[in-house]
Amino acid sequence: VEAIESDPVFSRENQYFQTQNERYEAAVRKAVHLQKKMHEMGWTENGPEFKYIYRALSGDVAFLLHRIFMRSISVLGSEKQIAKWIPLATQYQLIGSYAQTELGHGTYLQGLETTAVFDITTQEFILNTPKISAVKWWPGDMGRSATHTVVFAQLYVHGKCYGMHPFIVQIRSLQDHSLCPGIIAGDIGPKMNFEHIDNGYLMLQNVRVPRENMLNGFCEVQPDGTYIRRGSQQINYFTMTTVRISLISDEVVIPLMKACTIAIRYSVVRRQSKLKPGEQEAKILDYQTQQDKLLPQLAAAYAFHFINDYLQELLDRGYREIQRKNFDTLPELHAFSSGFKAMVTQYCTSAVEICLRACGGHGYSLLSGLPSLYTKILASCIYEGENTILLLQTARFLMKCFTAASTGQPVPPSVTYLAVGEAGKCPAKNKLDFLCPDIYTKAYQHMAVRLISSTAAKLQDLIQSGVKKYDAWNQCTVQLAQAAKAHCHYITVKNFAVTVEKLQTKAGIQKIMKHLCDLFALHGIFSNAGVFLHDGYISGAQMDMVTASYLDLLAVIRKDAVPLVDAFDFTDKSLNSALGSYDGQVYQRLYEWAQKSPTNKQISPAYEKYLKPLLHNMLSKL
Amino acid sequence: VEAIESDPVFSRENQYFQTQNERYEAAVRKAVHLQKKMHEMGWTENGPEFKYIYRALSGDVAFLLHRIFMRSISVLGSEKQIAKWIPLATQYQLIGSYAQTELGHGTYLQGLETTAVFDITTQEFILNTPKISAVKWWPGDMGRSATHTVVFAQLYVHGKCYGMHPFIVQIRSLQDHSLCPGIIAGDIGPKMNFEHIDNGYLMLQNVRVPRENMLNGFCEVQPDGTYIRRGSQQINYFTMTTVRISLISDEVVIPLMKACTIAIRYSVVRRQSKLKPGEQEAKILDYQTQQDKLLPQLAAAYAFHFINDYLQELLDRGYREIQRKNFDTLPELHAFSSGFKAMVTQYCTSAVEICLRACGGHGYSLLSGLPSLYTKILASCIYEGENTILLLQTARFLMKCFTAASTGQPVPPSVTYLAVGEAGKCPAKNKLDFLCPDIYTKAYQHMAVRLISSTAAKLQDLIQSGVKKYDAWNQCTVQLAQAAKAHCHYITVKNFAVTVEKLQTKAGIQKIMKHLCDLFALHGIFSNAGVFLHDGYISGAQMDMVTASYLDLLAVIRKDAVPLVDAFDFTDKSLNSALGSYDGQVYQRLYEWAQKSPTNKQISPAYEKYLKPLLHNMLSKL
Repeated sequence: VEAIESDPVFSRENQYFQTQNERYEAAVRKAVHLQKKMHEMGWTENGPEFKYIYRALSGDVAFLLHRIFMRSISVLGSEKQIAKWIPLATQYQLIGSYAQTELGHGTYLQGLETTAVFDITTQEFILNTPKISAVKWWPGDMGRSATHTVVFAQLYVHGKCYGMHPFIVQIRSLQDHSLCPGIIAGDIGPKMNFEHIDNGYLMLQNVRVPRENMLNGFCEVQPDGTYIRRGSQQINYFTMTTVRISLISDEVVIPLMKACTIAIRYSVVRRQSKLKPGEQEAKILDYQTQQDKLLPQLAAAYAFHFINDYLQELLDRGYREIQRKNFDTLPELHAFSSGFKAMVTQYCTSAVEICLRACGGHGYSLLSGLPSLYTKILASCIYEGENTILLLQTARFLMKCFTAASTGQPVPPSVTYLAVGEAGKCPAKNKLDFLCPDIYTKAYQHMAVRLISSTAAKLQDLIQSGVKKYDAWNQCTVQLAQAAKAHCHYITVKNFAVTVEKLQTKAGIQKIMKHLCDLFALHGIFSNAGVFLHDGYISGAQMDMVTASYLDLLAVIRKDAVPLVDAFDFTDKSLNSALGSYDGQVYQRLYEWAQKSPTNKQISPAYEKYLKPLLHNMLSKL
Repeated sequence: VEAIESDPVFSRENQYFQTQNERYEAAVRKAVHLQKKMHEMGWTENGPEFKYIYRALSGDVAFLLHRIFMRSISVLGSEKQIAKWIPLATQYQLIGSYAQTELGHGTYLQGLETTAVFDITTQEFILNTPKISAVKWWPGDMGRSATHTVVFAQLYVHGKCYGMHPFIVQIRSLQDHSLCPGIIAGDIGPKMNFEHIDNGYLMLQNVRVPRENMLNGFCEVQPDGTYIRRGSQQINYFTMTTVRISLISDEVVIPLMKACTIAIRYSVVRRQSKLKPGEQEAKILDYQTQQDKLLPQLAAAYAFHFINDYLQELLDRGYREIQRKNFDTLPELHAFSSGFKAMVTQYCTSAVEICLRACGGHGYSLLSGLPSLYTKILASCIYEGENTILLLQTARFLMKCFTAASTGQPVPPSVTYLAVGEAGKCPAKNKLDFLCPDIYTKAYQHMAVRLISSTAAKLQDLIQSGVKKYDAWNQCTVQLAQAAKAHCHYITVKNFAVTVEKLQTKAGIQKIMKHLCDLFALHGIFSNAGVFLHDGYISGAQMDMVTASYLDLLAVIRKDAVPLVDAFDFTDKSLNSALGSYDGQVYQRLYEWAQKSPTNKQISPAYEKYLKPLLHNMLSKL
């Protein structure tokens, strides 16, 4: 991290003042410089350093899609294709991208409209963009950088459609970077964030690529047009699963940790109003309302950090099975990665927004660092699968498991709880009982089971009353999504409690982690009270105990709030925030940073052109 | 609107591509041009046209603070001061700003640190910024445009502090716009939105202004230093009240209406997956989950449109009383404007974000128009009083009224409901009963009374158990804020129901408005189930009826969704959205607009500088 941060090329100092063009150029410069640096330092793309490099750069670098380009060839290509393309890519003799999403289609891949028709006479595929909605849209690195890309298109042989397949297509000349014949490509313009990435568009007009350019690790079109499929299609899911799980840490939990660090540090510098008459104005973190805003987000950052470990372990175990050709864990892995991607990105996006708003006007300034964290994390709700659709995929898995569990069939370990009959009532008798992980974990479990079983019952009823299956499903989707979220919430709470228990040897850490776990769980009950009260599992009187315990915890955790964010160990450079620096010099830094703004460096032509004539009463001459 | 939109100077066509400097220059140009136009058309600043002008410009114009400058002189100045300054301002012989907020203080005005010391020998006030946290920060039009500003400072005479007072201070030369002696001012740099406004900072170093520059409509420092206060201080609250109510329509409800228009129009163009096997892909608005996202926001836009009318009427009535020197309505007006400002801005900000997310990747592009609506409405949660503090002011009023009502004393008409004893149980027997406004309005009323009374009881208990009053208050603030929101939510639902009832003569409109009112109310119960279930007023079985009725309504309103947003009557130019145009040509427009991006107009220097050497394998030479 030091090696990166001390290098001026990697500085993010002026980032908040830069235009999209400037951000792009800086990102390319950094990416190229990084190659040089990695070579010097002996770091490799797959080495342990890369995670830290990425973190130190805050992802603000070009050619990230180049990695996806390489990964898709490694996974979907044949050995021959891998041998040909991977060395070229590794040595940057080409720059790759990955062209899947179209103007008209995102998450629903089967609907993609780009076509690839096999021409038996020339042994080529002819790629086309048949209509405006089929234009490739959003691929990173494609707007201005990439020379090659993997295009996903509907394969046609002898007039028959064989579905989506990946093709390597060269889009720009390796000599002068001009667009290749039949290629129309460019940048899609400004977005809420990712100004450093040249998300692009691509139209294909009778672009011909040789037969060898279809990635054929799992299928092939033979010279005579015979189509052969081999191996399991399911492995495609595994790639998506991996990506969804890996983004939770880098793109979601880390931004939330940064936002918590900034907002909590600022809240012990900022003073506002008097808490006690006659005293100095109070630090805003001493107000219950500010604690209620920020401390649950801090607890959530830890909760999701631990769930990420849990998911990684699940993934590693699944991968070992897959290597043994056992694909049994795939449905569970797919359901988990979908549901948690949706639940965690949604939760953390709201959490970052709460941190931003909790800093008032200064949070709204780009110099606080919070707006860019928010606009970046917001994108995670959308990319790699739209969250609602992902939750419904998890719900489909849960419905299957619930049916299986109800009829005594075996289910994956994570959902065996569905087989447990509904317990009666929550046994808590006073507010301290709600600091017992067993009590609240059971409440979450009960709630998840109830939402899953009642939705399953509604679905069943509708179908039995004659509603068509797909109609019945659509009529239950709001509740299905809710059930899937409840499942993920339960697993997160349970995993947090289990993690805390394992910290036995570190009593000090265990104690504070226990507080955070309690807070995360009780805040969840407090703010989703309806689903716990609904069938009386928790009574109104018990909900008052939850509220009391929750509010007590805020005051307890307040004391450790600053050390808890310091523990995330972000450097000032990595936070890049005028509000969040370690030394707490908020106002001085805001003032100094504002001086660097281009709005202060340039004398605006607006004065001579408009203000002067106006003030000098020459309105009529304008 | 036509006169504005047809004028190329007012075009917002390239807005999404502009830098902060370009946005500022365009806003100044528009403001100056607008003066000319208004002169030509015979429009006046206070005329009925101004609302439409502002709407047509989407607020994207400079000198808005000039109006606040004038208003503060009109309200706080003496007749002599008004006679001197208002004509100068009206003729733009100066450009005004309004300098209240400081780096270290926002909503808590008493904490402002700028000082104004009366110098009896020269009959001047000497203004100073004693420390970094006292630098004025955020005032609009001040960074680069204003020549004068109203500075709020702590008044000192003979060493005694008399609290906050307003002073007219010249900051830039009227000849060449250079900063006046002792003035350090500039732009505060980039923000999430409002790039067109030069929000500024201001440091004062022994700046002297004549005694006549203290606005002295309500108080005066006489030549010998005698301080005289006259008139009611309460009138200051009335100005804030007016501003908070007026921003609800222009800055909050209109952006939400725009967001709904864009998202709903896009959702009937966008198709995704198949709802029924074998059929064409379905419009995404036909999915229950998409309806659940968007239709409650549409209903909320109408609900808040009507509550705005209600607040305006309350304000007008209050103003008539004030003119008769009756200030009795001020506390109620202040409580209402605070609570509704907080509740409506928060609700609508979430609603716009939901609209943005519901448009997937394309919503995330600035070209959709949604990001700028979101970043703009987000600011409304912060300016004109931080929302949590405002809610607590409303709560303080409610606590007083509750105590009064409990002891049989008279209370303002809007809170007489607090005197009603708690009803037993909700009488609804089936899901159709929940389409009865009386049933759901009563449920909201019961819920508000319960939250207010239980919080009052907790506060009372704490104080009786020996906790100091201010500590007890702080320990209840999370629940107090919740109670204030519940009150505003109840009034909104009730007002919607009353408004629908008055539409009797227009049966068609009444019918659809009734659906929207039901949807708004039931969605509120569905998504805040806990507060209704808590004491069993609504049972779990009844909550299932609410859910069923709510989901049924989604399918009903789906049919009218497009006409309901068309009724908001925004022109394509005013929406400025590639997704939301009336003709539905979403993909074509995204493609065409992207072509205009500067990222496509300029050949990036990054190729020659970085990409070419990399691709041509000259890494070592970099």
